Amino acid sequence: MAQEIPNIEDMGFPFPQAQPNFELLGALPKNVKRRVCALKKVQLASIDVEAKFYERVHALELEFEALFKPLNEQRKQIVTGEKEPTDAECDVPLLHDTQPDVIDQLYEKSEADSNEKGIKDFWLNVLKGHDLTSDLIQEHDTPILTYLTDITTSTSVDPASFTIKFHFAENPYFKNSVLQKEYFLEIIPQEDSKFDFDGPNVIRVTGDKIEWEDGKNVTKKAVKKKQKKGANAGKFMTKTVKADSFFNFFDPPKSADETNEDEDAETILIAMIRA
Amino acid sequence: MAQEIPNIEDMGFPFPQAQPNFELLGALPKNVKRRVCALKKVQLASIDVEAKFYERVHALELEFEALFKPLNEQRKQIVTGEKEPTDAECDVPLLHDTQPDVIDQLYEKSEADSNEKGIKDFWLNVLKGHDLTSDLIQEHDTPILTYLTDITTSTSVDPASFTIKFHFAENPYFKNSVLQKEYFLEIIPQEDSKFDFDGPNVIRVTGDKIEWEDGKNVTKKAVKKKQKKGANAGKFMTKTVKADSFFNFFDPPKSADETNEDEDAETILIAMIRA
Repeated sequence: MAQEIPNIEDMGFPFPQAQPNFELLGALPKNVKRRVCALKKVQLASIDVEAKFYERVHALELEFEALFKPLNEQRKQIVTGEKEPTDAECDVPLLHDTQPDVIDQLYEKSEADSNEKGIKDFWLNVLKGHDLTSDLIQEHDTPILTYLTDITTSTSVDPASFTIKFHFAENPYFKNSVLQKEYFLEIIPQEDSKFDFDGPNVIRVTGDKIEWEDGKNVTKKAVKKKQKKGANAGKFMTKTVKADSFFNFFDPPKSADETNEDEDAETILIAMIRA
Repeated sequence: MAQEIPNIEDMGFPFPQAQPNFELLGALPKNVKRRVCALKKVQLASIDVEAKFYERVHALELEFEALFKPLNEQRKQIVTGEKEPTDAECDVPLLHDTQPDVIDQLYEKSEADSNEKGIKDFWLNVLKGHDLTSDLIQEHDTPILTYLTDITTSTSVDPASFTIKFHFAENPYFKNSVLQKEYFLEIIPQEDSKFDFDGPNVIRVTGDKIEWEDGKNVTKKAVKKKQKKGANAGKFMTKTVKADSFFNFFDPPKSADETNEDEDAETILIAMIRA
């Protein structure tokens, strides 16, 4: 969610992220430099107020979670087929901003009613259809994601974090019924990095360990490698390496410092945080 | 200010901005299409909750404006020289994250103390130093911006808007003491565009008319044009056309529909809104 009010504090002096203009700053008379220091002290106080603002917005997220919850529960019941919607619950067009005749054509194309409950492969299609996630899904991920029954989020205030939970039906691929990823936030900046403050910062991301059934782990693949040296020089040895998979999303870099082994997961992580 | 929690609602179905997958949707059995309609109705209810969230954030902006105000007032007093800061108000380093010896060098480079009050050309240098505004400033704008004494913002709830005010000392260029630009927001989406809702939307932008002193209007320039046809064919006629200037910032497109004559102003407008 993007808050639309421009943050005039960012236009203060000195600017976060901006290179200080040494020439300009050096030339300033000492009595003017004093005033610049005073401005910096005011800026520090402004940053404290800004951080408090973000604390309040985070609390607001928690408050609204309760309002979204029943709606998301309804969504889940419709998707999984726990509940068949009443006519009154369906009285909106299949597509918005669409000519009735186009919608009619869509109904003509309908396959015969099936006895299947809910909406088959709903979340698989959501992830395939969303540009943040579509590129992450490999062919070997698709059959697994057909077991995805719901995606939920939750917000925590202490510690400040938000969590994305992927709920799965019982399946032959892994034992987990929920795979979750938690983003821990630093809302109040550290004393020594206040001038870099630009809103809450993701300081740590954790993902659930997937308990794969034997031979079902799509995030690893075996490769044959010719040994260069040692006793086995020239021999081919089998080595297990990381494979592209949507499920690497749950194996994020342990810290911001750690070099990221999974560009895809990092891309979506940042994209989702900045969304 | 960016709100950091990813909006899982955006991952609902159908996606805002996403092209509906006609093939996928058409093939769905009629009883499944019914359930998709039910999901859309749930999605509409979610969007209403989301809009309420943004209303609350906007109200929070207004609440925090009162907390920023005294700090911005202090900043103004230091910048304009209305107030000379006490030693206690200056006890922070001239530059953060900087080695003391580098700071010492900056002090060595200091010119002799001047009798000038405050910090000369502070806001001119802020605007020159900020990448959102530096490109807008033309050579003929610089002397005018030396009279800029403060930049303030204000938020309004009814109608929802925010305003940027540029305060100027008495100057030989224009009569206005304040030039302001107001951004009007649509926080609650219209019924027919709910599925496109992605947070508050700037629906109208207004800027103050600058009362230029005679011959001082830097946003206009006279060009000589050879007449192609008519009685004056072949003669050179003087024509007044729009000139590049920072002050075009206050002459935004009247509506989103209107073709934008000032790419620069449009760029900064959007950049500031999305900031």
